[in-house]
Amino acid sequence: MNDLEIVAGNGLLHRRAFLTGGAALAAAVTGYRLSDTVAAQQLTDEAWSTKPGVAIPEYGIPSSFEKPVSRTLSNPKGEPRTQHARTPHHLVNGTFTPNGLHFVISHSGAPDIDPAKHRLVIHGLVKKPLSFTLDALGRYPMVSRMTFVECGGNSAAMFSNQPTQASVQAIHGLVSCAEWTGVMLSTLLDEAGIDPKATWLIAEGADSLALSRSVPIAKALDDTMVALYQNGERLNPGNGYPMRLLVPGWEGNLNVKWLRRIKLTDQPGLSYYEARTYAPILPNGKAYQFYFLQEVKSFITHPSPGLTLGAPGFYEVSGIAYSASGRIAKVMVSADGGSTWAQAALQEPVLSKAFTRFRVPWKWDGGPAVLQSRAWDEAGNVQPTRAQFVAQRGQTKTPVTNPAAFPSQHYNGPTSWAIQRTGEVTHVYS
Amino acid sequence: MNDLEIVAGNGLLHRRAFLTGGAALAAAVTGYRLSDTVAAQQLTDEAWSTKPGVAIPEYGIPSSFEKPVSRTLSNPKGEPRTQHARTPHHLVNGTFTPNGLHFVISHSGAPDIDPAKHRLVIHGLVKKPLSFTLDALGRYPMVSRMTFVECGGNSAAMFSNQPTQASVQAIHGLVSCAEWTGVMLSTLLDEAGIDPKATWLIAEGADSLALSRSVPIAKALDDTMVALYQNGERLNPGNGYPMRLLVPGWEGNLNVKWLRRIKLTDQPGLSYYEARTYAPILPNGKAYQFYFLQEVKSFITHPSPGLTLGAPGFYEVSGIAYSASGRIAKVMVSADGGSTWAQAALQEPVLSKAFTRFRVPWKWDGGPAVLQSRAWDEAGNVQPTRAQFVAQRGQTKTPVTNPAAFPSQHYNGPTSWAIQRTGEVTHVYS
Repeated sequence: MNDLEIVAGNGLLHRRAFLTGGAALAAAVTGYRLSDTVAAQQLTDEAWSTKPGVAIPEYGIPSSFEKPVSRTLSNPKGEPRTQHARTPHHLVNGTFTPNGLHFVISHSGAPDIDPAKHRLVIHGLVKKPLSFTLDALGRYPMVSRMTFVECGGNSAAMFSNQPTQASVQAIHGLVSCAEWTGVMLSTLLDEAGIDPKATWLIAEGADSLALSRSVPIAKALDDTMVALYQNGERLNPGNGYPMRLLVPGWEGNLNVKWLRRIKLTDQPGLSYYEARTYAPILPNGKAYQFYFLQEVKSFITHPSPGLTLGAPGFYEVSGIAYSASGRIAKVMVSADGGSTWAQAALQEPVLSKAFTRFRVPWKWDGGPAVLQSRAWDEAGNVQPTRAQFVAQRGQTKTPVTNPAAFPSQHYNGPTSWAIQRTGEVTHVYS
Repeated sequence: MNDLEIVAGNGLLHRRAFLTGGAALAAAVTGYRLSDTVAAQQLTDEAWSTKPGVAIPEYGIPSSFEKPVSRTLSNPKGEPRTQHARTPHHLVNGTFTPNGLHFVISHSGAPDIDPAKHRLVIHGLVKKPLSFTLDALGRYPMVSRMTFVECGGNSAAMFSNQPTQASVQAIHGLVSCAEWTGVMLSTLLDEAGIDPKATWLIAEGADSLALSRSVPIAKALDDTMVALYQNGERLNPGNGYPMRLLVPGWEGNLNVKWLRRIKLTDQPGLSYYEARTYAPILPNGKAYQFYFLQEVKSFITHPSPGLTLGAPGFYEVSGIAYSASGRIAKVMVSADGGSTWAQAALQEPVLSKAFTRFRVPWKWDGGPAVLQSRAWDEAGNVQPTRAQFVAQRGQTKTPVTNPAAFPSQHYNGPTSWAIQRTGEVTHVYS
């Protein structure tokens, strides 16, 4: 490890391993020493190398060895209450989430919609109410964009006054990132003709509770999309098949799935979810009426609880960062609980309102360490410390007896993982 | 349609619909007129809106209505010969291919590899032969990149002297694009220590025929990767689980799947696939010994055969372009068989050696039309016309009685789709 420069406490190394490529990298960095020296002829022929493999299917699915790479379900039988399916961030890598693992929250399951019969209607304060078939929408100019969707209640466990011992999936699993392709809502609103009195729209789903949320017209005309494709294929049923509203960077619940109706109005609808669930109460007794932005945030996915370290030596520390206010500008990583910091490499391309994977090389000396990340966005926003955050938004006592009565929304402070001498990773506040 | 400017024959419109966003777009473009005027209260409550939906599963799969969106299989029972699984480009959208639909060619099925037992060995002309477990590889610095993989034999039907009546999936379905995450091969070779005499490496798979290909060391040290993740999750079994060589932009067969052994040598291995299958014979009787690059190419996916047009009026024409020589610089689209051309909008971000989706707005007047695309890359390369291409590489007579005796590799000329008055789309040469 002699050629790797230590830049922060507890063994964080210079990110140049990721900034140079190819031969330059080979020259600059030597000696990770994670392999075994062998004579190549010692390689065993396993059973799968000695007989033909299985037939390639029409639609590929992951290896049976990847069964543990799945979403955790809060309500696996689909009983008549909310269902959460959380993304296993510690078991995936790269910058976006495959459709099978994209987080889902549904308050009434996934409606099994026949796309040939589904219609999208735009009405209310428009010159001409319109109805669109899926085929008709497919003829309009389309755009693709990578963007994250995050539930306002993601990371609710971070409000606890004690660090919850749980995986990154349990704590931060209600955010995912995908490439969405569809029609800009502005295109459709323009065709309907916006009445100048319209200042809001109310989007409604085709699910049985007709989930509804209000969106200001300015955002609807900015970058809001009627999404038809998710990561290249049609939307997954849990994510709104055959169409959803995509409101980049804004609270997940606003990204109305199974989108059926858009009504232009001169005031918000004050629907159940916007008036109650997603109106977080503050320590001063007041509440945010509308809290749209999912603010700048980051967390480390590797290592994290459940990914126990082996022998001391080289590890890559990596995680994801994102912001509703644009591109990620910088991510700093600490291995000593926030005393000293190393700048992480950001995986290109760094896209607005999308996951950015950050990586930093680390030499673990086998002693205790506390890993933490902190992100900045291009608008100059930075993650608050946890202390700053809870001073403004409150915290809960563990155990929480009535979650609905406690603050649980829009946590965007840091997350700290402690490395034990055994290599075990636990959740701490630091 | 009055506000859309016609810029080429047969109704191709200015790409500004894609270049502006939000309110500017709404102001600039009006009247696609693909919707029905309705009173919103006419919306019917379908069955799925009146009862709870189905439970969200641990791993999401596409809607049952999307069954037709699947790969076509040349050997569905996995008989002891090559299997092809082709990507349905006309049924997907956006810029990359979901793992379930990524093309696969396998000459002996997909080995069912236990990742805990699998090893990667680097040996031959190295200072220290090494063996890596999957866990060890996961500790090295990783990178993610979007890149296409294309079989050298993709588009073989284009060598026929008659236009083959088949879908874009059948003709061009052996190319796909994904985000791959893994370890740069240079990092591992550096640890093994490259003997200065080494000029090639031979990569070998763990499949039962131990498929092997030779790669020059310069490419191995440039951007070659040992890929561990595909679109965020572990590689799909047909695409090399748990690891494959990724040789960006180079012939698909070189991207050795189920990667097991890398031997550094002072000459190529002249394996079966490089000495025979992928050494195309030219009209002058000579053959390319090594044909690495997948050169600049594009094809229109929407509309294409099987996607019959409805009423005349506005349509989006879109497709994909890519090049082994870097980013796509420009795509031109013709609706009159190549007489006049309109510049297409390129979906951002335009990435090197990755799919770039191009789009151009089109007003179909209901008469005959021939759609064709032509791409340029940043290195200045342009797709040849089909006549230029076959003059150099040859063509085959239909029906082909012995495909192995005829040229079938590396077609990168244009593809032309004729629109009939009925809206049907057929394949023509133009």
